[in-house]
Amino acid sequence: LNCGCIPTKFLWQALKTKQKIQKSSDYGFKATLEPFSFADIIAKKDKSITNIRKGMELILASYENITVVKGAASFKDKNTLIVKSASVVIPESSSPESAVNAGLPRDFVPRNDEKQVVADKIIIAAGTKPSAVKGFDFDGAKIINSTDVLNLKELPESVLVVGGGAIGIEMATVLSGFGVKVTIAEYEKQLLPSEDAEISAEITKNLQRQGVEVLTSCSNALEMTDKFEKILIVTGRTPDSGLNLEKAGIAVDKKGFVTTNEFCETNVKNIYVIGDIAGKYLLAYTAQNDGAVAAENAVLGNKVKADNSIVPMAVFSNPPAASVKVKDFADYEGLAFGKFPFTASGRAFIENERAGFVKCAVDKNTAKPLAFWIIGAHADEMINTAAAVLKSGCIGRESMFHPSLGEGLFNAYEDAFGKCTETTSKK
Amino acid sequence: LNCGCIPTKFLWQALKTKQKIQKSSDYGFKATLEPFSFADIIAKKDKSITNIRKGMELILASYENITVVKGAASFKDKNTLIVKSASVVIPESSSPESAVNAGLPRDFVPRNDEKQVVADKIIIAAGTKPSAVKGFDFDGAKIINSTDVLNLKELPESVLVVGGGAIGIEMATVLSGFGVKVTIAEYEKQLLPSEDAEISAEITKNLQRQGVEVLTSCSNALEMTDKFEKILIVTGRTPDSGLNLEKAGIAVDKKGFVTTNEFCETNVKNIYVIGDIAGKYLLAYTAQNDGAVAAENAVLGNKVKADNSIVPMAVFSNPPAASVKVKDFADYEGLAFGKFPFTASGRAFIENERAGFVKCAVDKNTAKPLAFWIIGAHADEMINTAAAVLKSGCIGRESMFHPSLGEGLFNAYEDAFGKCTETTSKK
Repeated sequence: LNCGCIPTKFLWQALKTKQKIQKSSDYGFKATLEPFSFADIIAKKDKSITNIRKGMELILASYENITVVKGAASFKDKNTLIVKSASVVIPESSSPESAVNAGLPRDFVPRNDEKQVVADKIIIAAGTKPSAVKGFDFDGAKIINSTDVLNLKELPESVLVVGGGAIGIEMATVLSGFGVKVTIAEYEKQLLPSEDAEISAEITKNLQRQGVEVLTSCSNALEMTDKFEKILIVTGRTPDSGLNLEKAGIAVDKKGFVTTNEFCETNVKNIYVIGDIAGKYLLAYTAQNDGAVAAENAVLGNKVKADNSIVPMAVFSNPPAASVKVKDFADYEGLAFGKFPFTASGRAFIENERAGFVKCAVDKNTAKPLAFWIIGAHADEMINTAAAVLKSGCIGRESMFHPSLGEGLFNAYEDAFGKCTETTSKK
Repeated sequence: LNCGCIPTKFLWQALKTKQKIQKSSDYGFKATLEPFSFADIIAKKDKSITNIRKGMELILASYENITVVKGAASFKDKNTLIVKSASVVIPESSSPESAVNAGLPRDFVPRNDEKQVVADKIIIAAGTKPSAVKGFDFDGAKIINSTDVLNLKELPESVLVVGGGAIGIEMATVLSGFGVKVTIAEYEKQLLPSEDAEISAEITKNLQRQGVEVLTSCSNALEMTDKFEKILIVTGRTPDSGLNLEKAGIAVDKKGFVTTNEFCETNVKNIYVIGDIAGKYLLAYTAQNDGAVAAENAVLGNKVKADNSIVPMAVFSNPPAASVKVKDFADYEGLAFGKFPFTASGRAFIENERAGFVKCAVDKNTAKPLAFWIIGAHADEMINTAAAVLKSGCIGRESMFHPSLGEGLFNAYEDAFGKCTETTSKK
């Protein structure tokens, strides 16, 4: 919430709003956008994040058996955590009375000291941090990370984005959209190296149209640092948690991610792990799903598995892109592919968002849809429909509201059989 | 396309754009909206519709075995139609050469006379028209229908909308959003009489906030016509097609809708019927689905059924509302209901669209989701996800991208079991 997807998407949404204003003549309006300061946008972002955080604190406070201890934790042994600068989080208050009123033990009132927390069972959810590159330590000034961008008070003139993954693309999109001269450098041969090549090419084209210089197969990015006001390093995330996992005997892999199984258990009985630090998906929603599984297994003693068989992904390029596949996608033979451009969508026309396409992979033998790729407005919402379609294994015209952009999923599916009636004949 | 959902949604999208400009300070912008003329918005709408229509004409022209004859058709017998003012539609052209170039027989070149078209098999897709009320014939001036609204050159000062169904609500939303003083009158005790009462109440509240006077259980609407500049009658649609169906012996019900079965057959062999004129759903996407079924059955001689078991609905109120149920929803006993307000959605916060909620009905015995109701931004896209979820019979956190509004579907589902972690504890 504080430095991940929510604030990034706020800035993306601000960019979208700016562009809607600038394109409002398409609806017959004339609107003038006054000069704006990036600090004002960041201030509004901070206000939104504060409000959402307050909401979360209220939710936690509404459960009488949840106590929040805020501070820097590390293991002493497998049942004990030392929390430095410990304080109890109480929404909008720090008085002892509020703690008691909120149903918290008086012993837990805010204070700034070291506290030991003892527990029978522990769930680790410590996330990840931006990875630094040797010799280019983050200094918050010239060499910055994704969290620093979210707190910039003014826009730099130029930024070199090192790393062409989802975070790099989102940062390049927002910064260049607000007028920064951006170069994005990726070591592999395409942006989003593990994504479909057509989607990656479309993202690259759109970044270039927005004025971004895109360098791929680029191994010398960090030799160009002199040419840019700031260097944004987004080459990955590290599970460096400061938790002293070894004190509890918790096993990690060679990158430092906590090893786990489908029950979200670690190698140490009664210690569970979820989210980024387990190194599986690095996504908020799989983390949350794992969280529910870990809680059920830890508290009720069940053996529930984390079902992560169909997990959508999205990146907030402009327009956004998203994809989802069945888990065993790579095992299928005899695939057919269909494609539908949003230029052929009535809804895309009236939303004035005609860029992009939907691509669908189907199993020729069973006609089952196996994967969807979307680039276009609202791809990030539509991918939920695609995920649900893959779960059901079928898709029908009658279940797609018209006029919606989501109809594109059905049209792409039909196109795989040469049956799409919304585009010209292929014969 | 010409006078249905697409132009209506264009005006709705224009309203949305106007409001985004007016609320852009939420992102730190300052934008000034100059005075605008409704005629300019209508002109942009017409341009969009023309472009989409040209696209459709190109699609038809791309199939060498499709000939389009434009005109007013009526049956002579079960294999023969008389087309008055017949002309062949060729995109952007009316010369005989173009017709030949487009692969059409020279005999079919544009002309303004009566033509007989003979066919072995016929699919009727003649749609419906706005129903008139006795004594209040549409005159295009004081007494108008929904098609007239789409061509207004200037906004009236006041409008009485007679009929509180989907069309009435959409018209009231757009007109009042652009500054017209609107009263909407519904005979039944709520707007959208067959929709969930909570959704209807939320739509009513939002219309009232936008300045609309809402009258329900209103039986004397047409006695108030003197108080309004225009009376918009949207009490229903009639299948009055002018097709002379009786000449072919085609059976209709007492309202005039063509009777049909699940194979889209009429009572007359080799004559099929789809869409509004069959009086089933009056929706574009079920019509299109029926169209594919009728074509397959007519041309290939198959016996395919129109699967309309899960059909989403939406209405473009502000924010929009939508719903979808499993077909046998009414037969279930032991339902549990869950609800999730968008005020608790992070994505709704950053999109600055916090109004509305998702409601979900589940089968207590099997935990199967059975119905979703959504009111809120992008309800019209999210309802596709809900429909696909009902098809699959399950829903999981890991398949809902974060941050998306669609996560609200999962949260409402969890709430039905008292397990939603995104809202405060109910205990």
